[in-house]
Amino acid sequence: MGNCLFCKIIAGETPCTKVYEDGTVLAFLDIHPVNIGHTLVIPKAHHSNLYETPDGTLAHMMTVVKKLSVAIKNAVSADGINIEMNNDQIAGQIIFHTHFHIVPRFSGDGFTHWNSARDYHSGEATEVAQKIISVLV
Amino acid sequence: MGNCLFCKIIAGETPCTKVYEDGTVLAFLDIHPVNIGHTLVIPKAHHSNLYETPDGTLAHMMTVVKKLSVAIKNAVSADGINIEMNNDQIAGQIIFHTHFHIVPRFSGDGFTHWNSARDYHSGEATEVAQKIISVLV
Repeated sequence: MGNCLFCKIIAGETPCTKVYEDGTVLAFLDIHPVNIGHTLVIPKAHHSNLYETPDGTLAHMMTVVKKLSVAIKNAVSADGINIEMNNDQIAGQIIFHTHFHIVPRFSGDGFTHWNSARDYHSGEATEVAQKIISVLV
Repeated sequence: MGNCLFCKIIAGETPCTKVYEDGTVLAFLDIHPVNIGHTLVIPKAHHSNLYETPDGTLAHMMTVVKKLSVAIKNAVSADGINIEMNNDQIAGQIIFHTHFHIVPRFSGDGFTHWNSARDYHSGEATEVAQKIISVLV
């Protein structure tokens, strides 16, 4: 899909801070995280949203989401994890390529899901990604 | 799990407005919906959260979430769907039995996910559930 940002990331044309990859899915840090460690899990094949993603792909994505959530919670010492998938523009979907958000939450972070966002400072994203990778089972 | 509300619903000790059931999962309307059609999908076995739910159960739950999302969107003429799973109290988890939220979204509903909620009026929940069931493939 020529104009899909996530397809460009999968093709290596656009960089990302990768935390997990296998034959079916890719996971990388959101560049505008709600909290540090906020990760996106996407299928390598282009599917626009939940409704159009094959069952087998969704099932596999979900097991990856679980595995990453445990690793991310551990890596960033989070107090909780929100899993989110937005489908259609009105629900907050911006990139029309299926993706789960894994959002680490911290006591006192003041968020009600992702009403706000922050940026990583230089080198921080790579550091956080490495922490996650290092504890990923 | 004696004090778990969702285990009581599964056991039939506490009523719910069911929209789907199979050997592994149960789905029913949230009694305080963000929007009409807001549905919860839970495993029949008690698992506290994402981290503790077996992969096979999660994989199956996700295929049910997909199937229900298509049906719910159609049934309530929603413009989009948010999928959410909150893990740990800080992330908004209230019932400590794994559950996906399926939240229909409507143009102009003003929600940023579920910052607010509404109640069903008498009979409305049953009507909405029946609509969903009637279009469920």
